[in-house]
Amino acid sequence: MIQLNETHNPDLKSWVTSANDSATDFPIQNLPFAIFRRKGEHDMFRAGVAIGDQIVDLSAAYQAGIFDAALAPVLETLTEPTLNEFMALGQGAWSSFRAALSKALSDGASEASALASCLVAQSTVEYSVPAKIGDYTDFYTSINHATNVGKLFRPDNPLLPNYQWVPIGYHGRSSSIEVSGHSFHRPHGQLKAPDAEQPVLAPCKRLDYELEVGIYIGSENQLGHPVKLADAEAHVFGLCLFNDWSARDIQAWEYQPLGPFLSKSFASTVSPWIVTMEALAPYRQAWTRPADHPQPLPYLDSADNRNTGAVDMKLEVLIQTASMKAGGLPPERLALSNFSQSYWTIAQMVAHHSVNGCNLKPGDFFGSGTQSGTTSDSVGALLEATVGGREPITLANGEKRAFLEDGDTVILQGWCDSEVAPRIGFGDATATVLPAIDY
Amino acid sequence: MIQLNETHNPDLKSWVTSANDSATDFPIQNLPFAIFRRKGEHDMFRAGVAIGDQIVDLSAAYQAGIFDAALAPVLETLTEPTLNEFMALGQGAWSSFRAALSKALSDGASEASALASCLVAQSTVEYSVPAKIGDYTDFYTSINHATNVGKLFRPDNPLLPNYQWVPIGYHGRSSSIEVSGHSFHRPHGQLKAPDAEQPVLAPCKRLDYELEVGIYIGSENQLGHPVKLADAEAHVFGLCLFNDWSARDIQAWEYQPLGPFLSKSFASTVSPWIVTMEALAPYRQAWTRPADHPQPLPYLDSADNRNTGAVDMKLEVLIQTASMKAGGLPPERLALSNFSQSYWTIAQMVAHHSVNGCNLKPGDFFGSGTQSGTTSDSVGALLEATVGGREPITLANGEKRAFLEDGDTVILQGWCDSEVAPRIGFGDATATVLPAIDY
Repeated sequence: MIQLNETHNPDLKSWVTSANDSATDFPIQNLPFAIFRRKGEHDMFRAGVAIGDQIVDLSAAYQAGIFDAALAPVLETLTEPTLNEFMALGQGAWSSFRAALSKALSDGASEASALASCLVAQSTVEYSVPAKIGDYTDFYTSINHATNVGKLFRPDNPLLPNYQWVPIGYHGRSSSIEVSGHSFHRPHGQLKAPDAEQPVLAPCKRLDYELEVGIYIGSENQLGHPVKLADAEAHVFGLCLFNDWSARDIQAWEYQPLGPFLSKSFASTVSPWIVTMEALAPYRQAWTRPADHPQPLPYLDSADNRNTGAVDMKLEVLIQTASMKAGGLPPERLALSNFSQSYWTIAQMVAHHSVNGCNLKPGDFFGSGTQSGTTSDSVGALLEATVGGREPITLANGEKRAFLEDGDTVILQGWCDSEVAPRIGFGDATATVLPAIDY
Repeated sequence: MIQLNETHNPDLKSWVTSANDSATDFPIQNLPFAIFRRKGEHDMFRAGVAIGDQIVDLSAAYQAGIFDAALAPVLETLTEPTLNEFMALGQGAWSSFRAALSKALSDGASEASALASCLVAQSTVEYSVPAKIGDYTDFYTSINHATNVGKLFRPDNPLLPNYQWVPIGYHGRSSSIEVSGHSFHRPHGQLKAPDAEQPVLAPCKRLDYELEVGIYIGSENQLGHPVKLADAEAHVFGLCLFNDWSARDIQAWEYQPLGPFLSKSFASTVSPWIVTMEALAPYRQAWTRPADHPQPLPYLDSADNRNTGAVDMKLEVLIQTASMKAGGLPPERLALSNFSQSYWTIAQMVAHHSVNGCNLKPGDFFGSGTQSGTTSDSVGALLEATVGGREPITLANGEKRAFLEDGDTVILQGWCDSEVAPRIGFGDATATVLPAIDY
């Protein structure tokens, strides 16, 4: 059941004036969390909430005693260098703190002057991955993506028989998840041309991005105790942007029979900010299946899930090549997609993941899988946009791309808006491809 | 280069007399690590080393000041409730501490009386998973297992073309790894009979064990910086026993195209003890490939790897059913296998895993994949022993098993011995199947 409260009031304004700009990602209705420190500080990573172009330094706010004493145990978790302890507190604590913070940041709040001294300009900070991610699972929830990729690998049988029944997912690698702003080297791996007798070790030639939504688990379930669909969203802390960089040539050779491995574990990029599920309440939509598709099994089906299971979250991927940067050209949009088209909801992912008793822990992370629409300007990976590299795209400056080249920067952005609620954004998830190292 | 030193001396005896019994898993030449506490203690997990039927409580030894002051920083890491910090210190520290402990436990050592007060009987303790496992990767290194399983899923094409080139592996779930002695409920999952129109949610009917070796990473490599084959073993802390419980019916329906997921993430069992790579030095063997198989690519090939890449580690799986327990019957052997038959070495797994720049961290864990020999009494899973369940095995008491039944306890054991070195053992990895919960 999705409920709105005073923190969602579209008329709410903040005394932080930059938060009232209609173009900001971070109006007072958003209040996403990150882990940050001032550039140049060492070992001082701590939690903050975005408001306009500022960050509320929650450690400073805790030390200044700005919030009600009843919230002290909550604020204490926010002085940690990851959000895991805060996530573990559960929905009640998240919601109480959001209400208090919204009130304190509202126009005319009595806390304004004390809290103003706890603001840090976003332009002066650096971020870290906001949680210690224990386990990371990548789902595959876009039927358009699954169909497009399936056509390339299995032209006669693009969508496997289990796809419409099982929220397909696989375990991913958490150690190589980095926060927006990093660079990584083009990975080496075994490549085998279709007509070659044997593979060679070489730098990947078919490097790709994947436009995904990241999902952070908050409160845990005990091993052996599944989370039912009705309880599933209460276990979810919030969403971010996620680029699951993929080496398509390494993937094609390695992935059978146990799935992707080194094609995905060299780098993944998260946005710094986590937008809470509560902040996303005004942008929820009905979730439907085409009438001629199988409907979900009972453990994955409920009226709530059908009525409000989807999230109307716009997703954009942009590129800025080395020559665009050199020429002062801004990033160029490659695709615009929407998470609302996901074939499975967040609650279904949680319920399915734990139906075998698997325990989900605070800070665990799901990727939604590449979110692709049905048109070439809405697909979330170059593999799809270029039909397996056979039809390179042409950028506005005349450059062509079948796959990514060294020096390319890829930027993911995301936002929600509606006729009755303000625009809230996710910041961005950006990273740059460096040349392969000598091996 | 495998080198022996005084800690491997087969004539070495301990003043802990139970360590001198030729049947013990834990003579003074072994010295494996675990995390333990006395039964009934709360939050007191700490590191210990096995010697005979005792444990050296390393926190107590640290507090008693038994070891040279130069080792204090090393001992301090061993007061933690996981081995991760000790693992991160690297091979030099592991080896220095082993040498000091071996000396202090040797017959006639001046430290004997002080150290005797730090002994705790193994019969009085409980264990925890010895490291905080960040990422867990499951390999697939037994060509016999891959061929046997492949025949069941793809009769015409059992061994895929990449198998002889790529050390196949996939990311696993670390949250559900538990230490020996636990029980777990038979998992629910989507099952689809071949002739059924649609799947159903039901308790798994084809529950299986997998006889594997567990491999703990010690020192890390930085993201983007592969570990070369020559350096690979220096990053490995040690080995244990590992049961990668598998729900074959869930697996068959879910695993395409992204690999095993819920069929593996409901429970996995590690043995409490980690036998260090240094302790395994006397049991190393040449690693070879049949001459008509492709030889490894250069990044996976070296003279050292060929000369001493294999580990002669015997692996045994036993079962004790509910009725065997009720009748006082001991566990019965199902299979005896050997890690020396692995198609890929530990060093090759490390070098391959990191060739794309993937960072391996202290406490990260590899499963070797099921280790199967070529005969029905040497295969590491029921799936193989019963030919996909079609040919149930008959136990000595007349019970039959196609797959596991509720109440079955499965026990993995492992040991090394040779003509010139004593037997060292791994303890065991034991767990019991409970009935499915009501969903």
